[in-house]
Amino acid sequence: MMPDPRFDLKFHRDVSLSPDQVWDGWTHPETLMKWFCPRPWKVVECEIDLRPGGIFRTVMQSPEGMNMPDDAGTFLAVEAPHRLVWTNALGPDFRPKPKPEDVHLGFFFVVDLRFTPLPNGGTSYTAIVMHQDEQGRQAHAAMGFEQGWGIALDQLVELKGSAKPNERR
Amino acid sequence: MMPDPRFDLKFHRDVSLSPDQVWDGWTHPETLMKWFCPRPWKVVECEIDLRPGGIFRTVMQSPEGMNMPDDAGTFLAVEAPHRLVWTNALGPDFRPKPKPEDVHLGFFFVVDLRFTPLPNGGTSYTAIVMHQDEQGRQAHAAMGFEQGWGIALDQLVELKGSAKPNERR
Repeated sequence: MMPDPRFDLKFHRDVSLSPDQVWDGWTHPETLMKWFCPRPWKVVECEIDLRPGGIFRTVMQSPEGMNMPDDAGTFLAVEAPHRLVWTNALGPDFRPKPKPEDVHLGFFFVVDLRFTPLPNGGTSYTAIVMHQDEQGRQAHAAMGFEQGWGIALDQLVELKGSAKPNERR
Repeated sequence: MMPDPRFDLKFHRDVSLSPDQVWDGWTHPETLMKWFCPRPWKVVECEIDLRPGGIFRTVMQSPEGMNMPDDAGTFLAVEAPHRLVWTNALGPDFRPKPKPEDVHLGFFFVVDLRFTPLPNGGTSYTAIVMHQDEQGRQAHAAMGFEQGWGIALDQLVELKGSAKPNERR
């Protein structure tokens, strides 16, 4: 899919993990909680029902112990281990959210993740994040999208890379 | 799925068509154009790419020949022949629409259709239409949702019921 530069943010990185390892990181709550949020913030709750229309919910906590309000989003496409699409614009069972102001980031987005195997066993990791309008894209960029996704992904690589081989999946 | 009376409209009817006949009516453009819109309005264009993230687009024309602006929506769930979910809030490839004011009805919705076989060979036909807020539900109801869906479904039953058996699918 081609990103639209007016509305979309794109994050791309080649990583040393396999698509299966990346998929595990995104789809198992106990794994996701360990890397999804740049430290010293952390994920203190995570709920995943891995099917289109199933819930995807995380609660992040600041270093001061303040929880971000939890917005239950949903999955739109679940194609293990190569593609995962989710959104905060619809909740479980595809129920539309009332207003972008009501979700904690203040805007709606759809994330289209692609995990493509590389000849060296690694993964070409691409996220295209689509927003409703330019304001949404700009707000997300200004929050430190590129840096935040990079730090989080480094945490996933560190987590999986440090796991013993028989603990990897 | 249970409808939420604040935000949802529900349409239910038992019809004499099989789930396969109803599914055909909803998923083949040449069939859909013959029943989808209460006469004397008509559907003059229809585009269907029957997969989650695929386009669902219709153009309706008034008796005076005026075309409604076309909004490309998308499918969210495609489970032949029993369940079809689509929305006007996202376009093809799940791209979010900018604003509800920009779609021709003026509000976003998600339609969850269920076609359940009845012992007599017919179908329990249920649509739950979810809106972002009460205003969306009220606006949709005031446009004649219940009557419009009923007339259109009558047109589908008439169309399929009058087809020769070997033309049915």
